[in-house]
Amino acid sequence: MQTITPILLCGGSGTRLWPLSRQGYPKQFVPLAGTGSLFQQSAERLSGRGRGVCFAPPVVVTGADFRFVATEQLAEIGIEPGAVLLEPEGRNTAPAVLAAALHLAARDPEALMLIAPADHLLPDRNAFRATVARALPAALAGQILLFGIKPDRPETGYGYLELSSPTSPAGSATPLSRFVEKPDVAEAARMLASGRFLWNSGLFLFRACDILAAFLTCAPELLAPVRAALAGARADLGFLRLDPEPWACLPDISIDYAVMEKADNLAVVRYCGKWSDLGGWDAVWRAALHDPEGNATSGPAIGIDCTGSLLRSESEGLELVGIGLRDMIAIAMPDAVLVAPKDRAQEVKQAVLNLRQRQAPQADRFAKEHRPWGSFECLSRGERFQVKRIHVRPGGALSLQSHAHRAEHWVVVEGRAQVTLGGDTRILEPNESIYVPQGARHRLENPGADPVILIEVQTGDYLGEDDIIRYDDVYAR
Amino acid sequence: MQTITPILLCGGSGTRLWPLSRQGYPKQFVPLAGTGSLFQQSAERLSGRGRGVCFAPPVVVTGADFRFVATEQLAEIGIEPGAVLLEPEGRNTAPAVLAAALHLAARDPEALMLIAPADHLLPDRNAFRATVARALPAALAGQILLFGIKPDRPETGYGYLELSSPTSPAGSATPLSRFVEKPDVAEAARMLASGRFLWNSGLFLFRACDILAAFLTCAPELLAPVRAALAGARADLGFLRLDPEPWACLPDISIDYAVMEKADNLAVVRYCGKWSDLGGWDAVWRAALHDPEGNATSGPAIGIDCTGSLLRSESEGLELVGIGLRDMIAIAMPDAVLVAPKDRAQEVKQAVLNLRQRQAPQADRFAKEHRPWGSFECLSRGERFQVKRIHVRPGGALSLQSHAHRAEHWVVVEGRAQVTLGGDTRILEPNESIYVPQGARHRLENPGADPVILIEVQTGDYLGEDDIIRYDDVYAR
Repeated sequence: MQTITPILLCGGSGTRLWPLSRQGYPKQFVPLAGTGSLFQQSAERLSGRGRGVCFAPPVVVTGADFRFVATEQLAEIGIEPGAVLLEPEGRNTAPAVLAAALHLAARDPEALMLIAPADHLLPDRNAFRATVARALPAALAGQILLFGIKPDRPETGYGYLELSSPTSPAGSATPLSRFVEKPDVAEAARMLASGRFLWNSGLFLFRACDILAAFLTCAPELLAPVRAALAGARADLGFLRLDPEPWACLPDISIDYAVMEKADNLAVVRYCGKWSDLGGWDAVWRAALHDPEGNATSGPAIGIDCTGSLLRSESEGLELVGIGLRDMIAIAMPDAVLVAPKDRAQEVKQAVLNLRQRQAPQADRFAKEHRPWGSFECLSRGERFQVKRIHVRPGGALSLQSHAHRAEHWVVVEGRAQVTLGGDTRILEPNESIYVPQGARHRLENPGADPVILIEVQTGDYLGEDDIIRYDDVYAR
Repeated sequence: MQTITPILLCGGSGTRLWPLSRQGYPKQFVPLAGTGSLFQQSAERLSGRGRGVCFAPPVVVTGADFRFVATEQLAEIGIEPGAVLLEPEGRNTAPAVLAAALHLAARDPEALMLIAPADHLLPDRNAFRATVARALPAALAGQILLFGIKPDRPETGYGYLELSSPTSPAGSATPLSRFVEKPDVAEAARMLASGRFLWNSGLFLFRACDILAAFLTCAPELLAPVRAALAGARADLGFLRLDPEPWACLPDISIDYAVMEKADNLAVVRYCGKWSDLGGWDAVWRAALHDPEGNATSGPAIGIDCTGSLLRSESEGLELVGIGLRDMIAIAMPDAVLVAPKDRAQEVKQAVLNLRQRQAPQADRFAKEHRPWGSFECLSRGERFQVKRIHVRPGGALSLQSHAHRAEHWVVVEGRAQVTLGGDTRILEPNESIYVPQGARHRLENPGADPVILIEVQTGDYLGEDDIIRYDDVYAR
């Protein structure tokens, strides 16, 4: 059986699901719906063998900021990526797809690639795999396959695919007649009724050689810079950092616009299962399970006499109460809360811009910061002190470092930590503590199999993250 | 000039302003509007001399749980109470007023008393004092004075006072014709138009002997138990703890119902200044400053295209964003969020009941717990550890104590702490730490003039507040 390489596109940093999705840790890595993150669900769905398809290890395309998150999340579900390409900057989907295609074609020009945005919801794994299987013959015959979603409402937020003839649910690929831009309501209703239109999902299947041929015809100007970015790529701890210089010359352009809308060997397979791009809180509400009044709640949230509303508390210790809400969304986090009517969910972007103008850190960052060795969050802050909860994953090691302006008290509360201080290295068990004087070289590591949790109390006249001198770092930072 | 003793009633524990007001630390002690807490504003308004009145130190009537909060808040604004009566249980206003009257009458039967709920907003201090001055002659002549608020809208949530004749704003007391229960909208509109009806504010002025005579006539059954509760009262660190046994026999009854609606020597003075009982979030919105679209925001909160809405973030680190809200309230705290249409604000009570049923601590308690020596809050919690931020006010001292199930690491981050451990006592400066082993006797004190802030990391198999053996406590707990 021919294997298919999933290309997981997860460089996005959308703000439409703020405050749960933020630039520093976007939607695809967040547990938004279903079990695990959307990225994990995507990787899982497109792995292994079954239902007529067999997947090779995925190629992940993401930004440098997310490299450790992505590999750690894959490790959590036992998936080893085939490659992780790091985009120096986001340039939309066309350069990302082209880079992946060139990367694969170098070893096998006929390699089958399944392009998958890593932030969509496709809960029926088997149905989707069966649809991929139906698409395979046409892809092997040189066609570029688009997956079209059977619409269930006159949606005006998506592009549509018009088929040259109606398809049956179990049918094979059908030639594409044309793309339709986001329609108005009347047009959307007409298309829904006709049965010949599907939503353009952003999922594609093709051979590397076929998409490269399409790029050569439709968007030849992208080839040279992407080739150069790959040729100049630097291998770094298993990541492939694309060369920033040629990459910077690339336009921000989608694969639809660069290639699909111009290519002539397009075919469509219809997918009838549940699908959502979770492109806004209204979409998250729609994709969620509802109570009889149409409310979707998650976390410690209650709706009293509410209808058609989405109430999410994203923290165990945060009670969200909605009373008498009609078609509203309320998203509560300990550092940010959003309240809006469901039909204005798309305006969340404006809110984020507003927060950025006010330099509110919540615009783009979470209280919990992720690092290659684990994560930390600030628990409390004063003028001359800060308290952090530090989580070091098994095998994780902070850099060997010192601070010019602060001293640190460490108390290990879970796991066994290996602490280097000056020339001395020792193990700290739970309930053991150590003092790291200002200026002292120190390192924190987790040599065990369980996570280490450590409480750090910093004191000093300057407590910024940039007061760090690194002497050695296993993550090459 | 005759002095007036303010009787500050602050035993209430209403839930209508949840999540900002909770049973464990209710509305009157919270900075809700204006500068300082409502209790502090009330005490300040009714202190000193000026505008034709002179106030004696206040008598505070509150519950035992709030005794330290009340005296600490008074100390903050430099007011020494005349007495603090502690109700063993809340029994509404009649027993509280009676206890205060008996307490004052023991020294001076003709003592003038101004009864003031401590959780109302009366921002114009001078206007109110001038109104009190206008009421004085009638009170000195043996009348029971009610303060009636000039209505500015057909409010259906208040009781009304009907005057025997219209009064002028600057007029003296007018005899009361009758009480009117909360009316319907049509009736309220009619009363507003007539000019002869005022809102019953719950503020009263009378001599102790006159209200005692009225109790004797109108509610004689209350006298014996309240007398007994005062006779059996126990002085405790400056507080007067009323005897719980006779107190328990008292009914829950308001001063209006027990006395005012039956007495025949009632007179009314009209108050034309701004007043609010802040009896719900709708009232808080009404009393607040509004932008041109009618929104009132406080804390880091933004409304994008909102109208007529109240957006409050109660924490510096919590961004609240409302989009497209119409006449909504959204109150955000790090551990609880409320969202409701303004006209359903009164249903917050149901929400609190619901949270209680689910045993959510947010129903009644704050993350920050107040103690006579200061306060603490839990910053982080795991199965076998807890991190607290402890604030010890100048002169404060925790009890000499030990814990059977936990050890504690203390790091002083602000101020100078005096620590007793076993037989040893020493001073810890900022950035100094100490380890308190499981079972060790220890005490934390603040001998300095600045607050002490200390980070405590607890580890152990049980971390409940009830794991405490007290050997000595300056607050007689």
